[in-house]
Amino acid sequence: MLFNLKDAIYKSMRVLNRLKVKAIDITIGSRYILMNIDDARRYHFKVNDRIRISYGEKTITATVGLTRKYVRSGEIGLPHLLLEELKAAEGDEVTISHVPPLISLRYIRKKMNGLKLSKDEIYCIVKDVVEHKLNEVEIAAFLLAELFKGMDLDEIEYLTRAMFETGERIEFEKPVYDKHSIGGVPGNKVSLLIVPIVAAAGLLIPKTSSKAITSASGTADTMEVLAPVEFTAEEVKEIALKVNGCIVWGGSLNLAPADDIFIRVEHMLSIDPIPQMIASIMSKKMAVNATNVVIDIPMGKGTKVETLDDAKKLATLFVTIGQRLGINVRVGITYGGQPIGHAVGPALEAKEALEALMGKGPSSLIEKSTALAGMLLEMGGIAPRGLGKAYAKEILYSGKALKKMKEIIEAQGGDPKIKPEDIPIGDKKVEIKAPCDGYVTDVDNRAITAIARAAGAPEDKGAGVYIYYKKGRKVEKGKTIMTIYAESEDKLTEAYNLALKLNPITIEGMLLAEYP
Amino acid sequence: MLFNLKDAIYKSMRVLNRLKVKAIDITIGSRYILMNIDDARRYHFKVNDRIRISYGEKTITATVGLTRKYVRSGEIGLPHLLLEELKAAEGDEVTISHVPPLISLRYIRKKMNGLKLSKDEIYCIVKDVVEHKLNEVEIAAFLLAELFKGMDLDEIEYLTRAMFETGERIEFEKPVYDKHSIGGVPGNKVSLLIVPIVAAAGLLIPKTSSKAITSASGTADTMEVLAPVEFTAEEVKEIALKVNGCIVWGGSLNLAPADDIFIRVEHMLSIDPIPQMIASIMSKKMAVNATNVVIDIPMGKGTKVETLDDAKKLATLFVTIGQRLGINVRVGITYGGQPIGHAVGPALEAKEALEALMGKGPSSLIEKSTALAGMLLEMGGIAPRGLGKAYAKEILYSGKALKKMKEIIEAQGGDPKIKPEDIPIGDKKVEIKAPCDGYVTDVDNRAITAIARAAGAPEDKGAGVYIYYKKGRKVEKGKTIMTIYAESEDKLTEAYNLALKLNPITIEGMLLAEYP
Repeated sequence: MLFNLKDAIYKSMRVLNRLKVKAIDITIGSRYILMNIDDARRYHFKVNDRIRISYGEKTITATVGLTRKYVRSGEIGLPHLLLEELKAAEGDEVTISHVPPLISLRYIRKKMNGLKLSKDEIYCIVKDVVEHKLNEVEIAAFLLAELFKGMDLDEIEYLTRAMFETGERIEFEKPVYDKHSIGGVPGNKVSLLIVPIVAAAGLLIPKTSSKAITSASGTADTMEVLAPVEFTAEEVKEIALKVNGCIVWGGSLNLAPADDIFIRVEHMLSIDPIPQMIASIMSKKMAVNATNVVIDIPMGKGTKVETLDDAKKLATLFVTIGQRLGINVRVGITYGGQPIGHAVGPALEAKEALEALMGKGPSSLIEKSTALAGMLLEMGGIAPRGLGKAYAKEILYSGKALKKMKEIIEAQGGDPKIKPEDIPIGDKKVEIKAPCDGYVTDVDNRAITAIARAAGAPEDKGAGVYIYYKKGRKVEKGKTIMTIYAESEDKLTEAYNLALKLNPITIEGMLLAEYP
Repeated sequence: MLFNLKDAIYKSMRVLNRLKVKAIDITIGSRYILMNIDDARRYHFKVNDRIRISYGEKTITATVGLTRKYVRSGEIGLPHLLLEELKAAEGDEVTISHVPPLISLRYIRKKMNGLKLSKDEIYCIVKDVVEHKLNEVEIAAFLLAELFKGMDLDEIEYLTRAMFETGERIEFEKPVYDKHSIGGVPGNKVSLLIVPIVAAAGLLIPKTSSKAITSASGTADTMEVLAPVEFTAEEVKEIALKVNGCIVWGGSLNLAPADDIFIRVEHMLSIDPIPQMIASIMSKKMAVNATNVVIDIPMGKGTKVETLDDAKKLATLFVTIGQRLGINVRVGITYGGQPIGHAVGPALEAKEALEALMGKGPSSLIEKSTALAGMLLEMGGIAPRGLGKAYAKEILYSGKALKKMKEIIEAQGGDPKIKPEDIPIGDKKVEIKAPCDGYVTDVDNRAITAIARAAGAPEDKGAGVYIYYKKGRKVEKGKTIMTIYAESEDKLTEAYNLALKLNPITIEGMLLAEYP
């Protein structure tokens, strides 16, 4: 110890300043508050400084914005989101203080230097993410360090547990079945078939899903077309126990609140580091108490996992982490070399899923959905090993899955009578025609996703792409091979220009006839 | 080509919407505008979307924030900074449109994948940085990709040229001498001695400097204590030609506008990737037309370059990039194993530099400053090779350097009569005492910097650390070895707590006397 006692008793009381709350009606992405410029000078705050605000038992962290006009000296302007977090109202007095340097930043740098993080260090980072102490740039650094430096099994387990422990959980008194895809293949609306099939078989499958990270539609985006997906944990439990299943958005449940923040930053960078992907999925499975989980790994050109070797490695990671967490995991490595079904984009996909539940769906969608559902039926003892898929198909073609889906839609507050033709699709559209006779030799996942996203998906529900001709199909010159739908002219134009550039569907020429 | 003519003539005109400007009095770090929620829905904007705003010939890119109250439908709220950029005033009509996906994002991802970027690709990234199209998270990804994946000589040259080409330049009609430190050692106020020495010798040294990235005070932060440092390019030229030198902030000159944005993000992450460091320095040297440059590489524990081997490699990089750019570069590898001088923090350093110019400075500061100044005197033919340092000392001790510094301070609008004792230091302070008798065996650069920053440096000019005992000095128990200065109680407490934890000065015990 370097310091003498006299120094050590130097009063280390934090200086607190009190300001009166004013509600401000501004919604911006970051957590800004507004402070009068004079107060900022007085209390030593600059624009973009972190600030700690306390009211009663609650303390939040936000970022300082300055104004002369909207907030007077002695006041602090809080947007509604932060007012709610603080449980404060206009006129209340809050105390403000500076935020000390974050220890978690040191751990992020440790990972940037390629060093292994301990359980406590990872927990510290995740906690500061959840409490909004780390900003997006700092979180980006953590995610990129994961991407570039990797994490070992211990770290992935710690990350998963930290994301689980900083969230809420739903306890079910019976075994919980679940599935999750790592994503990466467009048009992957299989959960909208798997959940009702598995639930119709009598297994409990309270599916929480995410919104799109880099895709054109996440399961939650697609389901939202048919029914609300935002519920409290209590409501989800009630819905799931009532009809044996649900398809809800995990974000609103606060099951792994760090995850949505991580996902937002991943989204900005279009990255999806593997440790984060596993922790994201498994923490949410832990949070719903899942005991048996099927993981879908779409494999092939343009997906997240391009070779069978990589897919097997990732599958092993999932199974191993599952064992460490006490979750029985089976992995389905599925063909993802082109979109599943024909439709890409929330409304188009919801429509196609509904048609498939009516027995009219494309075979790629039905084959994949029943295969994965079958694995769950086998894990649940409903079907003998090897016969799960056949059982799943039986449930689908008997109409029981459709009936179950209607129950789920109704339980979630949607209209169970909804028909595929009722679903609104973007009213701006442009058709892409085949420029020659030939066979389709490639449908490029990444190009399709980019075009659907340029058209406005997933935020614009009606935006997306419908593909008429998939790999191996013969097509004649002038036939419509693809339609782009959008809700705004701007975005349609963007998507169309992108399609011109990316050439998403390859048609290879063919000699049709020759004389004599 | 996949598409037929009929598609190709699809009208690709961008849809433009017109809104009336309203000035909003809000300063937040990011470039937010405010749009009424109803307009946002109508024009398909969501919170945090990028938006392009045009008025006359000017087009800017900003980020969408939403409000119901502050901006009515038909209006768009612009903070003053953006109003100025657009050269628009309240009531003017601007057009808004969506921003198409950025190609530069693809190049950033290419670098993230470890691939080499072409000249055009790097230019595209830098241009989108300068035009505020890339946000902080995306820029962080680029910087981290540089850090983790590196850049080769070509890429560093392209990056330097792109940062130079996207900025303004100052043309001088005679040879320009310059120096720059890569930073990393606390208390490095040598430019405040070198510039007046070199200018007093008759060489032109228009020194542009930066504000602190990860240190407690950049040269611009320190100089700002003595005189204004923000000028236009015209003004800098006038000042430099009048008194042969200046010490100004490069950021306000727009010499390499990308650099300040990069630096802001580097600051958030406390990183300083080598390609970026070289490009940052060399682009600004290009911009002032420098022909002869001395680069200071402080080397030692706790600096950016810890071994002589690494320092030599970096020196070679600087010389090679210099050759490619037509700049004659000499590198001084200097001892950076502990702070230079005793003072760390803007005001404390400015005071110490002024004292040194009066011949009363600490020897580490004077030895280093005259050595580097001497290299420039040799390059300029003022001193024969090997005698530069002696010439520099002569200029310093003759009082010519002090006289020149007063001219520079006056030319920059400061008070040339300023005395060291006039400089205000933070009025909150705490002394750290030696806990035992002994010799100082280590002064930890990183700890000193962290403590000075926690105390408020460089933003709080008066904050910092004064070190009374440096390496090798004998100290008695109870003597003050270090004082922390701050402008606020909060920050002083933070800094003090950090000092207790980090133990910045190591004193090793010593047997003073033994009886009998």
